Amino acid sequence: KIRGERLWDSLMETARIGGTPDGGIRRLTLSEEDARVRAWFKEAVEAAGMTLSHDLFGNMFAIRPGKNNDLPPIAMGSHLDTQPTGGKFDGVLGVLAGLEVIRTLNDAGLETEAPLMVVNWTNEEGSRFSPAMLGSGGFAGVYSADQVNGRRDSEGISFGDALEAIGWRGDLPPKGQPIGAMFELHIEQGPILEAEGKDIGIVTGVQGLRWYEAVFEGRAAHTGSTPMSMRQNALLPAADLIRAVDAIGLAHAPDAVATVGHVTVSPNSNNVIPGEVRLTIDMRHPRDAVLAAMDAELQSAFARILAASGVSGALTPVSDVAAVAFDPDCIDAVRQATARMGLSAREIVSGAGHDAVHIARLAPTTMIFVPSAGGLSHNPAESTTFDECAAGAQVLLEAVLGYDRS
Amino acid sequence: KIRGERLWDSLMETARIGGTPDGGIRRLTLSEEDARVRAWFKEAVEAAGMTLSHDLFGNMFAIRPGKNNDLPPIAMGSHLDTQPTGGKFDGVLGVLAGLEVIRTLNDAGLETEAPLMVVNWTNEEGSRFSPAMLGSGGFAGVYSADQVNGRRDSEGISFGDALEAIGWRGDLPPKGQPIGAMFELHIEQGPILEAEGKDIGIVTGVQGLRWYEAVFEGRAAHTGSTPMSMRQNALLPAADLIRAVDAIGLAHAPDAVATVGHVTVSPNSNNVIPGEVRLTIDMRHPRDAVLAAMDAELQSAFARILAASGVSGALTPVSDVAAVAFDPDCIDAVRQATARMGLSAREIVSGAGHDAVHIARLAPTTMIFVPSAGGLSHNPAESTTFDECAAGAQVLLEAVLGYDRS
Ligand SMILES: NC(=O)NCCC(=O)O
Ligand SMILES: NC(=O)NCCC(=O)O
Repeated sequence: KIRGERLWDSLMETARIGGTPDGGIRRLTLSEEDARVRAWFKEAVEAAGMTLSHDLFGNMFAIRPGKNNDLPPIAMGSHLDTQPTGGKFDGVLGVLAGLEVIRTLNDAGLETEAPLMVVNWTNEEGSRFSPAMLGSGGFAGVYSADQVNGRRDSEGISFGDALEAIGWRGDLPPKGQPIGAMFELHIEQGPILEAEGKDIGIVTGVQGLRWYEAVFEGRAAHTGSTPMSMRQNALLPAADLIRAVDAIGLAHAPDAVATVGHVTVSPNSNNVIPGEVRLTIDMRHPRDAVLAAMDAELQSAFARILAASGVSGALTPVSDVAAVAFDPDCIDAVRQATARMGLSAREIVSGAGHDAVHIARLAPTTMIFVPSAGGLSHNPAESTTFDECAAGAQVLLEAVLGYDRS
Repeated sequence: KIRGERLWDSLMETARIGGTPDGGIRRLTLSEEDARVRAWFKEAVEAAGMTLSHDLFGNMFAIRPGKNNDLPPIAMGSHLDTQPTGGKFDGVLGVLAGLEVIRTLNDAGLETEAPLMVVNWTNEEGSRFSPAMLGSGGFAGVYSADQVNGRRDSEGISFGDALEAIGWRGDLPPKGQPIGAMFELHIEQGPILEAEGKDIGIVTGVQGLRWYEAVFEGRAAHTGSTPMSMRQNALLPAADLIRAVDAIGLAHAPDAVATVGHVTVSPNSNNVIPGEVRLTIDMRHPRDAVLAAMDAELQSAFARILAASGVSGALTPVSDVAAVAFDPDCIDAVRQATARMGLSAREIVSGAGHDAVHIARLAPTTMIFVPSAGGLSHNPAESTTFDECAAGAQVLLEAVLGYDRS
């Protein structure tokens, strides 16, 4: 049985690394805070007797040997990076619950058949370097090493340089670490489990996700002395696009979502007509065919808005991650664990993207969800209770042991 | 006769302080670059035999004695701060042309009746600390010292602290420096002089200007797992307001302008629904009655958008500068100077705000405009020719001498 207090203490201890006064965490990937939480993780897994390696993208693999070390390890894990104004549970829970499983097995002197592994995937959030799930995507070969290293943050720093700078670039190539299966515990980040009073979400898959960058280029000029008729205001088509993206989401609701989350206005001065505006677009749907239709609607809305605007612009796809169905055996291991423990559970499709999406291409994979209060996530007020975290970690332990036995 | 090359050399020399690769200047008020250009100006005016003092707000006053030093000095000047992506002429021309007038009189050994003064007003642009024309407004008593010192930039640094930090807080109180009259040479920043092939704009007044800050507060949440129906997206009403402001400008065109120039989205992450959006609004019209009507339209558009949005928000006035008519005698001095020189000129109302607007409350004041290529300003490509700058400085000299004689 896992020890809930020990898991909670680890959560609260690491929450101080990049902790913000409002109870959240700001721990952007490959930042100084990320370096500190990586050092914490290294110390913790080594103290638990594990062997740590890391790959080209800074993904961290901590291994506990099993009886048969010819078998590829069963992985647990998620990510330790956060949103700029993130909460205490998104990602972190999956890594620290993996650590808690190892500590529990150590206490019990229990040896598994296959080795076990706890993984910290780099840049899951995608806030500093877009797209999300970049480290696991690089590992799985979805993105080339050059693609990953070349991604730049809003200050122009590349992923490769930032990784070098914090000293976590390793030698292991993509797919260089064998994986037998992966179980990722994560908070739901949505309202369903709480609304239905369920303890656990048995995650059967993840909806499809497409990201885009849009840019409008007009002409910066004086707000006071430039007549309305002489303007090339890049912010006006941007406003139209924000509305159009929302309308696409609404048109395919309740299953679709569509959002503009990031906007950069240049030069962003009270008395300058915006010369350039950049926006990011995030659209998702559980069915790839609907997502393709939404894509077409976005393309035509963008073309219409651009044509009417008198400015120039472009819409560029950034990532296109198809919907994923998880492995039936892994799902079954989770289902049986919840049943054995007498927990209430329901099957659920994840609204958020996760590292498990990319790893599912390489190995049998699934996820376990615990509730998020109010469905809130990517917010300092993100909240999952002590009992919910402990229950999730216990399901993780039992699912992994169950899968290992079979 | 002023020396055009000397004026141009000064313009190009100071343009290197904060100069950007695209030929513009980034010299935000009270920044390190501002400190450097102030040191340059101090050295230059002292080399020209002037005495420099500065006031509570860092406004700089360089005085050349006259025959009768009981008379208040006739001022020339403008500002040395720039937009974040500003050009080489906005503001700087008016200060350096004042310096060129002094140098010319020194060369000619000419003494004026009244003392002459060259002024550098602090924070004219209003980009770092809103509102614009803050230094001259503080000097004229339009804003209290506490109001000026308390204004904060987007990083939370106050005007007072930034002024302290660069070492330019003086003792002179508001209105502490007598001013007999002020002539401000400035680029037009609009298209009229160029379109009509005129050399000089005889500025009869400045249109009214109102600035506002709008904020919408929704709830930051995950873009993937938060259904469309559960969102409080602060960016949607912001998009509506951007469109509404533009519509108000269009409704009162051609004389009205209305613009959203500055937008801040929080947390501004691709996969976070915007929790808070801040915008600035800039509306102008030559007639105060129309500007008041535009204000009422903005209030009602804001109320309507807010009510429909399901988020909370507020609209706050930041500055309200009434339209100004300049002094007939000063205007006449400019008109006669252009006539004497045989330059083509037209009367013009300024679309941009200027320090002259506030100083006109204290002393007879007017402005002289020279053309802006393509009407472009607040842009690195802002351009006024060598000959145009020289002609403007010569008109400044002759207008000041003419006014001094009368
Ligand atoms: N779980 C999570 O928030 N991942 C970030 C990628 C996404 O936007 O879904
Ligand atoms: N001249 C000038 O650009 N002043 C800044 C204040 C304004 O926005 O009009």
